[in-house]
Amino acid sequence: MTPLAVRPAEPRLAVARAMEGIRQSPLREVMGMIRRPGVLSFAHGMPAAEMLPAEMLARGAGEILPAEPRHLQYGLPLAELREQVVELMRRRGVACTAEQVFLTTGAQQGLSLLSHLLLDPGGDVLLEETVYDGMQMAMLPMRPRLHTVPSDLHRGIDVDAVEALLQHGVRPAFLYVVTEGHNPLGVSLSWESRQRLASLAKSYGVPIVEDDAYGFLTYEEDGEALPPIKAIEARWVFYVGSFSKILAPALRVGWLVVPEELIPLLTALKHGSDVDTCTFSQALVSRFLDSGSLPLHLHRLRSTYRARRDAMLAALDRHLFGASRWNRPTAGMFVWLELPRPVDLVALLRSAVEQDGVAFSPGIAFTVGASEQADRTLRLSFVTLAPEQIEEGVRRLARALSRVA
Amino acid sequence: MTPLAVRPAEPRLAVARAMEGIRQSPLREVMGMIRRPGVLSFAHGMPAAEMLPAEMLARGAGEILPAEPRHLQYGLPLAELREQVVELMRRRGVACTAEQVFLTTGAQQGLSLLSHLLLDPGGDVLLEETVYDGMQMAMLPMRPRLHTVPSDLHRGIDVDAVEALLQHGVRPAFLYVVTEGHNPLGVSLSWESRQRLASLAKSYGVPIVEDDAYGFLTYEEDGEALPPIKAIEARWVFYVGSFSKILAPALRVGWLVVPEELIPLLTALKHGSDVDTCTFSQALVSRFLDSGSLPLHLHRLRSTYRARRDAMLAALDRHLFGASRWNRPTAGMFVWLELPRPVDLVALLRSAVEQDGVAFSPGIAFTVGASEQADRTLRLSFVTLAPEQIEEGVRRLARALSRVA
Repeated sequence: MTPLAVRPAEPRLAVARAMEGIRQSPLREVMGMIRRPGVLSFAHGMPAAEMLPAEMLARGAGEILPAEPRHLQYGLPLAELREQVVELMRRRGVACTAEQVFLTTGAQQGLSLLSHLLLDPGGDVLLEETVYDGMQMAMLPMRPRLHTVPSDLHRGIDVDAVEALLQHGVRPAFLYVVTEGHNPLGVSLSWESRQRLASLAKSYGVPIVEDDAYGFLTYEEDGEALPPIKAIEARWVFYVGSFSKILAPALRVGWLVVPEELIPLLTALKHGSDVDTCTFSQALVSRFLDSGSLPLHLHRLRSTYRARRDAMLAALDRHLFGASRWNRPTAGMFVWLELPRPVDLVALLRSAVEQDGVAFSPGIAFTVGASEQADRTLRLSFVTLAPEQIEEGVRRLARALSRVA
Repeated sequence: MTPLAVRPAEPRLAVARAMEGIRQSPLREVMGMIRRPGVLSFAHGMPAAEMLPAEMLARGAGEILPAEPRHLQYGLPLAELREQVVELMRRRGVACTAEQVFLTTGAQQGLSLLSHLLLDPGGDVLLEETVYDGMQMAMLPMRPRLHTVPSDLHRGIDVDAVEALLQHGVRPAFLYVVTEGHNPLGVSLSWESRQRLASLAKSYGVPIVEDDAYGFLTYEEDGEALPPIKAIEARWVFYVGSFSKILAPALRVGWLVVPEELIPLLTALKHGSDVDTCTFSQALVSRFLDSGSLPLHLHRLRSTYRARRDAMLAALDRHLFGASRWNRPTAGMFVWLELPRPVDLVALLRSAVEQDGVAFSPGIAFTVGASEQADRTLRLSFVTLAPEQIEEGVRRLARALSRVA
């Protein structure tokens, strides 16, 4: 006796309801168009393909695999790589031990696992109105309640607004912050902002998830970047690092630096998520670091990306000088552009791709909830195109904008 | 004015409470011991390292990487590989299209994403009392309410019990089933069980998550394995496949076959989980399949594993004949052993490793909730040791058991 009368016609998809609240990135609609030949794209958050150390990694793969079948097997986190991350962190001004390093399948998995670790279903989270879309995706299964604060084009997250929310009794499971070369805003936080955020985290007992995926991509000539918030507050800041932007996205290796006692919980959550981080990728990254090639590779990356940033800023000055505003990123991959007034950016994107052969990311893709900002902001990646393509792309973008201005 | 008085001493860990209900695998405690030199381990669910096609994959890597920097970049799911999975599925008796194939970071991610797709926080799930521990881990963030049915050493999941629960009104978000070479039970389901489960899924509108990680590791001489449940009921069965057991775990490539309209939701969930599946691994797998090497490779794997299974069964007959019971797996990697009465298996594991130099997985690692079975069952992997080591390992195991019998 099967109750055919009450049988649902389709599987019940729990997450489908949760996703109604998440705006689908309009990028997806026009993704096929953006990839059309001839389109100059500022849309994607990808490193420059020609800068990836393909030959060195290929040589490494050819030597590692036949010699060490264990690198094709399941495995524990590679001890050498955890030590090498400790050394990398030291160069970022952060003191930690290998026991506090947790290797992940890219920084994105770090964000996902920390969401699962810290968030109760339906729990509270504090983030910026304009935020990395992947962070919203990472939290999606937990159906969080989002509290937002504004960001400034030049100063980043509004620390006063964070403090005001905490003072009014909001106690989020965590605060999400991108310290260096914010995606999508391009901003790096001032030392004062870092210190204040560290102090707020400790005072109110609210962990900060610090996304430092761009922490090694800095462009100031005079000295190193500022240390991350983790360097100021070791206990209440959970640091997220990545090899995707400094070596290669396809390695899918990132790391967390967290209090040591959290490692067993993260290990269990990671086991449930994807068992382990590709042992072969771990070995490849470790070998690259061991060869001593990273400093020169980073120097080349920074020089190339700096020149491209400068090309974009010069082109913006030339073609968009006037009512639009943008910032001068000192790190990362993005310039954030504010138009003088709202326009239909999805329609503009479509016409820019079809008529002008240029693409960008509309602000709405990074906006939490309703925001006036969403309809007047654009993210432009400056790293994937060569300087002369950047000049031509910005010229085309200015033409597209002139039709709606 | 920061309310220092109410500041918590530690970050609140949402998942810590949820994990109190999950028994920690005792394996973890003794993991270091198991890896001690000289210990013959039947404990791990890993393929035989010497059977991994390391040289072929190394050659592939050396050729792919320098020629195609895009394989080091972020990327869309590889179209060729989705087509190749369609062909693999056809060999399993399942007709599907490339649009229904979703590539994952190993089968484990498939289980994790389907949990997030189908389960509301606190929702109901139906599974066996004795079940793959990674499935419990995958669901952990969603804090599910678990309904269980018993399994039989020789017939696997108790389909009558499944039907009874459904008849009594239980409506789980899904039913989890391992059709072929069950982990940890070693059982393959009869054709009748597959047909009945397919029919129940459709009649009651309850999706089946069918884990077929061992579907290509079958040992019957007379013909192919039975088709999975997916071949009987295309719509209500969500199929989970893996290259970890037939190529290499470190590739971290698996796949789902699901109704096409679910792919966008899974894509969003995967983006939040780890952005994409390693493009380089996808290319390596695709190249291996394209070379036509899989049939011979599978033939070798099956021959080797079959001989090892037979060695284990013969050794069990020799050394444990009497009160203990075990099954004869026709697929997968495991023999399931039932002792005549309950013993403290964690203590036994410790003494077996220390005094006898042999390791196994205690049943408690795979048990949901309290079960009499947990204290009288062992999982033995037969694939990682050579036949003479298996003989010696079972001899040692019998000695360890004789101390507590």
